[in-house]
Amino acid sequence: MMMSFYETDNLIITALKEDMPNNDITTDSVVSEHSTCTVEVISKGSGILSGIGYFERVFSILGGVTVETLSKDGDAVSEKEILAILHGSTRSVLSGERTALNILQRMSGIATNTRKSVNLIYHTGCKILDTRKTTPNFRVFEKTAVLHGGGHNHRHNLSDGILIKDNHIMAAGSITKAVSMARENSSFVRRIEVETENLDMVREALEAEADIIMLDNMDLETMKKAVKMIGKKAITEASGNMTFNNILSVAETGVNYISMGSIIYSSGVLDISMKNLKLT
Amino acid sequence: MMMSFYETDNLIITALKEDMPNNDITTDSVVSEHSTCTVEVISKGSGILSGIGYFERVFSILGGVTVETLSKDGDAVSEKEILAILHGSTRSVLSGERTALNILQRMSGIATNTRKSVNLIYHTGCKILDTRKTTPNFRVFEKTAVLHGGGHNHRHNLSDGILIKDNHIMAAGSITKAVSMARENSSFVRRIEVETENLDMVREALEAEADIIMLDNMDLETMKKAVKMIGKKAITEASGNMTFNNILSVAETGVNYISMGSIIYSSGVLDISMKNLKLT
Amino acid sequence: MMMSFYETDNLIITALKEDMPNNDITTDSVVSEHSTCTVEVISKGSGILSGIGYFERVFSILGGVTVETLSKDGDAVSEKEILAILHGSTRSVLSGERTALNILQRMSGIATNTRKSVNLIYHTGCKILDTRKTTPNFRVFEKTAVLHGGGHNHRHNLSDGILIKDNHIMAAGSITKAVSMARENSSFVRRIEVETENLDMVREALEAEADIIMLDNMDLETMKKAVKMIGKKAITEASGNMTFNNILSVAETGVNYISMGSIIYSSGVLDISMKNLKLT
Amino acid sequence: MMMSFYETDNLIITALKEDMPNNDITTDSVVSEHSTCTVEVISKGSGILSGIGYFERVFSILGGVTVETLSKDGDAVSEKEILAILHGSTRSVLSGERTALNILQRMSGIATNTRKSVNLIYHTGCKILDTRKTTPNFRVFEKTAVLHGGGHNHRHNLSDGILIKDNHIMAAGSITKAVSMARENSSFVRRIEVETENLDMVREALEAEADIIMLDNMDLETMKKAVKMIGKKAITEASGNMTFNNILSVAETGVNYISMGSIIYSSGVLDISMKNLKLT
Amino acid sequence: MMMSFYETDNLIITALKEDMPNNDITTDSVVSEHSTCTVEVISKGSGILSGIGYFERVFSILGGVTVETLSKDGDAVSEKEILAILHGSTRSVLSGERTALNILQRMSGIATNTRKSVNLIYHTGCKILDTRKTTPNFRVFEKTAVLHGGGHNHRHNLSDGILIKDNHIMAAGSITKAVSMARENSSFVRRIEVETENLDMVREALEAEADIIMLDNMDLETMKKAVKMIGKKAITEASGNMTFNNILSVAETGVNYISMGSIIYSSGVLDISMKNLKLT
Amino acid sequence: MMMSFYETDNLIITALKEDMPNNDITTDSVVSEHSTCTVEVISKGSGILSGIGYFERVFSILGGVTVETLSKDGDAVSEKEILAILHGSTRSVLSGERTALNILQRMSGIATNTRKSVNLIYHTGCKILDTRKTTPNFRVFEKTAVLHGGGHNHRHNLSDGILIKDNHIMAAGSITKAVSMARENSSFVRRIEVETENLDMVREALEAEADIIMLDNMDLETMKKAVKMIGKKAITEASGNMTFNNILSVAETGVNYISMGSIIYSSGVLDISMKNLKLT
Repeated sequence: MMMSFYETDNLIITALKEDMPNNDITTDSVVSEHSTCTVEVISKGSGILSGIGYFERVFSILGGVTVETLSKDGDAVSEKEILAILHGSTRSVLSGERTALNILQRMSGIATNTRKSVNLIYHTGCKILDTRKTTPNFRVFEKTAVLHGGGHNHRHNLSDGILIKDNHIMAAGSITKAVSMARENSSFVRRIEVETENLDMVREALEAEADIIMLDNMDLETMKKAVKMIGKKAITEASGNMTFNNILSVAETGVNYISMGSIIYSSGVLDISMKNLKLT
Repeated sequence: MMMSFYETDNLIITALKEDMPNNDITTDSVVSEHSTCTVEVISKGSGILSGIGYFERVFSILGGVTVETLSKDGDAVSEKEILAILHGSTRSVLSGERTALNILQRMSGIATNTRKSVNLIYHTGCKILDTRKTTPNFRVFEKTAVLHGGGHNHRHNLSDGILIKDNHIMAAGSITKAVSMARENSSFVRRIEVETENLDMVREALEAEADIIMLDNMDLETMKKAVKMIGKKAITEASGNMTFNNILSVAETGVNYISMGSIIYSSGVLDISMKNLKLT
Repeated sequence: MMMSFYETDNLIITALKEDMPNNDITTDSVVSEHSTCTVEVISKGSGILSGIGYFERVFSILGGVTVETLSKDGDAVSEKEILAILHGSTRSVLSGERTALNILQRMSGIATNTRKSVNLIYHTGCKILDTRKTTPNFRVFEKTAVLHGGGHNHRHNLSDGILIKDNHIMAAGSITKAVSMARENSSFVRRIEVETENLDMVREALEAEADIIMLDNMDLETMKKAVKMIGKKAITEASGNMTFNNILSVAETGVNYISMGSIIYSSGVLDISMKNLKLT
Repeated sequence: MMMSFYETDNLIITALKEDMPNNDITTDSVVSEHSTCTVEVISKGSGILSGIGYFERVFSILGGVTVETLSKDGDAVSEKEILAILHGSTRSVLSGERTALNILQRMSGIATNTRKSVNLIYHTGCKILDTRKTTPNFRVFEKTAVLHGGGHNHRHNLSDGILIKDNHIMAAGSITKAVSMARENSSFVRRIEVETENLDMVREALEAEADIIMLDNMDLETMKKAVKMIGKKAITEASGNMTFNNILSVAETGVNYISMGSIIYSSGVLDISMKNLKLT
Repeated sequence: MMMSFYETDNLIITALKEDMPNNDITTDSVVSEHSTCTVEVISKGSGILSGIGYFERVFSILGGVTVETLSKDGDAVSEKEILAILHGSTRSVLSGERTALNILQRMSGIATNTRKSVNLIYHTGCKILDTRKTTPNFRVFEKTAVLHGGGHNHRHNLSDGILIKDNHIMAAGSITKAVSMARENSSFVRRIEVETENLDMVREALEAEADIIMLDNMDLETMKKAVKMIGKKAITEASGNMTFNNILSVAETGVNYISMGSIIYSSGVLDISMKNLKLT
Repeated sequence: MMMSFYETDNLIITALKEDMPNNDITTDSVVSEHSTCTVEVISKGSGILSGIGYFERVFSILGGVTVETLSKDGDAVSEKEILAILHGSTRSVLSGERTALNILQRMSGIATNTRKSVNLIYHTGCKILDTRKTTPNFRVFEKTAVLHGGGHNHRHNLSDGILIKDNHIMAAGSITKAVSMARENSSFVRRIEVETENLDMVREALEAEADIIMLDNMDLETMKKAVKMIGKKAITEASGNMTFNNILSVAETGVNYISMGSIIYSSGVLDISMKNLKLT
């Protein structure tokens, strides 16, 4: 298989090379190149599956293995459930195992965490967002896992969304100036978001006609006032130390979105392993 | 700055491009290219610092910013401690902030977790090892963080160490055959490690003259017997569901090493942020 | 010099390699490696300068040459004007000449064309936009030239802006459905633009709450009605066969933006050459 | 599809990534991944087709689309003519449309321009050459379009042909010295071309046994004398401000070749679009 | 064909580009793109074949040619023997010929040299090792050829094996210190090898519990004493000016391995050519 | 240091990565990162030095070491001569040693071989050429070494020179047809070379007005007749099994060039090592 137009293919290839810069000296020494097998991919915990498509792609890139999937991205899976069955070259199965599982386990951990957050506030209509607090060179997988978990993506990177934060405001002089500069100097296809910490900042952002107003680290009372002040004039996003414990109260203030970096950076993994290898 | 001979430089560059495929549309719109500032890097929790060298490198690659470091990798840091002060181009400071912090926070989370494990068993002489359950394309940073935390690295990848696992044994037919094939087909500079699950397997590994014997998912009694049986004839490594709760008992069985994937994959982050930006 | 974090550096490097896959067999045969010179960069026509910064970067990447610039991007320059003086290695000057000029000439041609369009409608407040009809692998230079000419950039690529065109509407079933799907499936930081061809489509786009409405290939009467119907409820963009001859009438309909692909794809070049080389 | 041994494949891939660094956020939001369609590629003007093979390759790299071509490179096509019909994934069709058309339109514009020049002087036996005044990172497509238009390629780059220009002569001291150094220091497989501006220079180039003599910016009388003086002793190439208006007179002086950079850099595009999408 | 996960594929692609940065101007001018042929690959000397798999891969990457192999890697081949027959595109056959043969000839030269060494000492049980004195960017092919010749590979690179040489000992202060530092600072999966030049150094290495002891440039008497002193306590490797003339005497001292860089760097080539092209 | 515009820099970087995919586990374990030293580069044989500039570049890319050169490329050096002295980081010295020496030793071996050939025929005026029988991915170094040895380069690759060989003639039908097609389909800046094996072929090549005629595997009598027949009408190149033993007789036939692949592929190495490391 090959270097691809698709970024995720290239990241899978570099991940495989990270784990196999030359070759798999154990497998190549111990297993015949003609050996074939089947092996099961089994969940050792319960959660939301994410990354099974990329799992399959790892083996498609290595070659010689077909992956029969029994669940799909976004499915709830339970302990001991068989998620997929691999058929093909024993060498490829063993050499690709860890890279494929590393992707699948992390993505599923994130999707599981996200789904839990989403379910907690689902009835309020408020939506869960991710942030840019991701693992370097693994963001596309992490943000995809958030979607599989039912969350929504904030901007992908600094090039595709405008968010004026405290340090930008300090550098520009005021919210008013910062929004005006952003409108003047960026493409008209962008919405402009401003981070605010109190009602005065919210008011200034509204007057500057910000499209999205982030309510950062506000207490619930302030946030309620901010939401009311803003009304339909801008989209609202609550941010700052959002946890499973407090997001319901936050959602009930009427904000449109809650951004929650921890669904990615504190997610851990869903334990999944390859078991019951049988030579064929 | 530039694409480098050094892999970590290249990973920093790809991480920067992941966050800035074109440019930072907010900062470039709102901050003058001639603006300069100072800003503080502050820990919002306590733990072990790791990655401050790479943090510095991010800004050296972006250019225009110097990083004055006040702590070094491996240091214990406390809440509200100033870890570093940045001086230079406001644009570079703001554009590099997230990528630099994403590296620093994750590495410090791992180092903190590792140090905690190491301290729990330090008096026994047993050492903590990482595993290959790492984030794809971020392994070199994660394994370096383990060293900063006081742990040791197992093999880096499939090309630089031999570890005969259950599936390899199944494919080869027996431990004896697998070890013999590994010895015949790999370079003589390698040690050969075998994964065992019970005393019979340990015995067979010993007879096959394995250099390292992994005791996988054994209960403490079995592990003690295995350690005794092996004596000085091989190095021992305990593995399988090692947690803060059980590693002391495991270490007291006399094993040489405990491998503990969760110091990486369940580490979370140490919360660190850039604050108090002042234009200069 | 070096492969860089900056995309334009990498494009300059690949452009230099395109023109010099091995080396410059003429210059290396005929000019001593110790020879130094000065040479002038002279405009052979009048127009708007664009790309002088990249011109300089070509020689900074090759090394051994300093560029003293006498004009800057966005300046109006006239025939026979000296734009810059190069000092340094004769070999680098001669080997980099064509690549540096190819960038400078094309960008200045585009900036000149853009400025002409901008000036024609400046008093109306309507703004000139580029499109994605650019030369493959040269877009970033072309879109930067539009800015130097006083124009504005539409989205940079398919990943950073939503524009629902006729074929998307056909595939989705209706404008209403397409906008609804776009809102559901994309990040909330995006504005949603819809291409319309008549007043019914404009009305449907308005009801679907599109943020930007493109008025494509409409006659002036229809366009005026569309602009009036839309009012402040959406941003308007006129599109389709915009030329120097008709953009003033279009701008006078009250549209906010006119997108005009021909400022890039029909721009030709501003003739610029390096002359009066003197050995030093 | 894949990164390839073939340079044009790689340029197509980087062009696709330029337009889709992550994904096509409109199409992916609005069109089902299972949707299929047919769509026609229609010429909106008349000219010479060039690039239909690369057009096809764009979709072969994206995957999921087959291109049924109705004309081939070098064919004269007329307004409203259907050039090709695409069948397959609606997403791929819409995501690849602009990149594929950007290549096809530019190449066809160049081929059209070239054919016009070639036809003007065809009966004289004189041939049209391109130059190195090309768009950075797009040269191979532009030079191929010249061939499709019936023109010939001058050297591809600085590494594969020797052309001693005015600045080289100045650096070497004289034509005689420059030719002698070129012959000494370059591979014997190269022909040596010298740029001359008057009859004295032509005479010196002849005495130095140059293989090709460029007659640069000469008036017609001088050029005739130069051609006569040179006879069969060298190949002749006329150069400098060659236009549709003057090339016939130039060709009639008896020169072997006319090099004409404007067939590339002033070519504009042949307007071609994808229309009549039908879901299947 | 494509850029690959497999390093050797990428090296073949870069080798093909080294020989064909643009295209094969002779073949493309002289041979029709529809021409097909058969051609024989014939050995012009006798030796051990190595690289026929990579030879095949060159044509698989170029496309359009199938390679029917009549011998396999490691086979003894004789003068005038037909090693393979190619069928397919005449252009691909001619364009890939030199790159494919350059790989095959060099690898076979090394395998031939290695086999000769191996046979000389086969009965002693001593084994032949390669070294890192390889051709930059061609090592993986050279080390594979050693295996085809019956030799063994020493470490592949500086990252996957520890060898403490004279300069390391000087930098560390002593063998004892160096071994101790190596054990402390490297992964426990590594064996530690020490280079020694006399019996005192051997003794110190033994006391430091080195796993492998290199006996470098020792006379036969000293080497015998060293081998006896070491016994089973470490693996032994003789090194330094090993030639066809002396390796039997060295092997008879009882060393386990002889490392012999000249099997690679003095190997020359096995002359192989493509003949008897027939159009089909 | 960095990925460079210069191909040789990139090849040095990939060579360093080939030898150090991660890091130098011996040196990094055993030598302090602050340690500095001097070390001498000493020739262990006599020959022609080649590659000292690239040797220096290896350390410039690694950083931390300065190379004081005492000889230059093309110099004759003798046994025990000190060629250079390194000053700087002990780690960089030891990690770069092998890659730097591998380049220097191979290039010097080739230059030595070439000089020997050149000297044998110097008085005849005939010149020595290399061929394309080079080591894949190392050609640029090998062809540069030929120049340092006093030889000349034939074409660098299939893209920059036309050579019609036996298989091309077979595919085209005749020399006459092949030359005619080459002239029609390639750029007029190329000379056309034809491989001939007998006087009839020489005659046909002359009539087809080939620029260069290769006399391949002819006996001396035939070659003399061919040279006479050709006279000044084409350049002549003798080829096929040229050795130190026969090139003088060949040169005396009056041919202009002798191409001799074995100066590269049978060159072996000039033994050079780094000795007398002293910590500073």
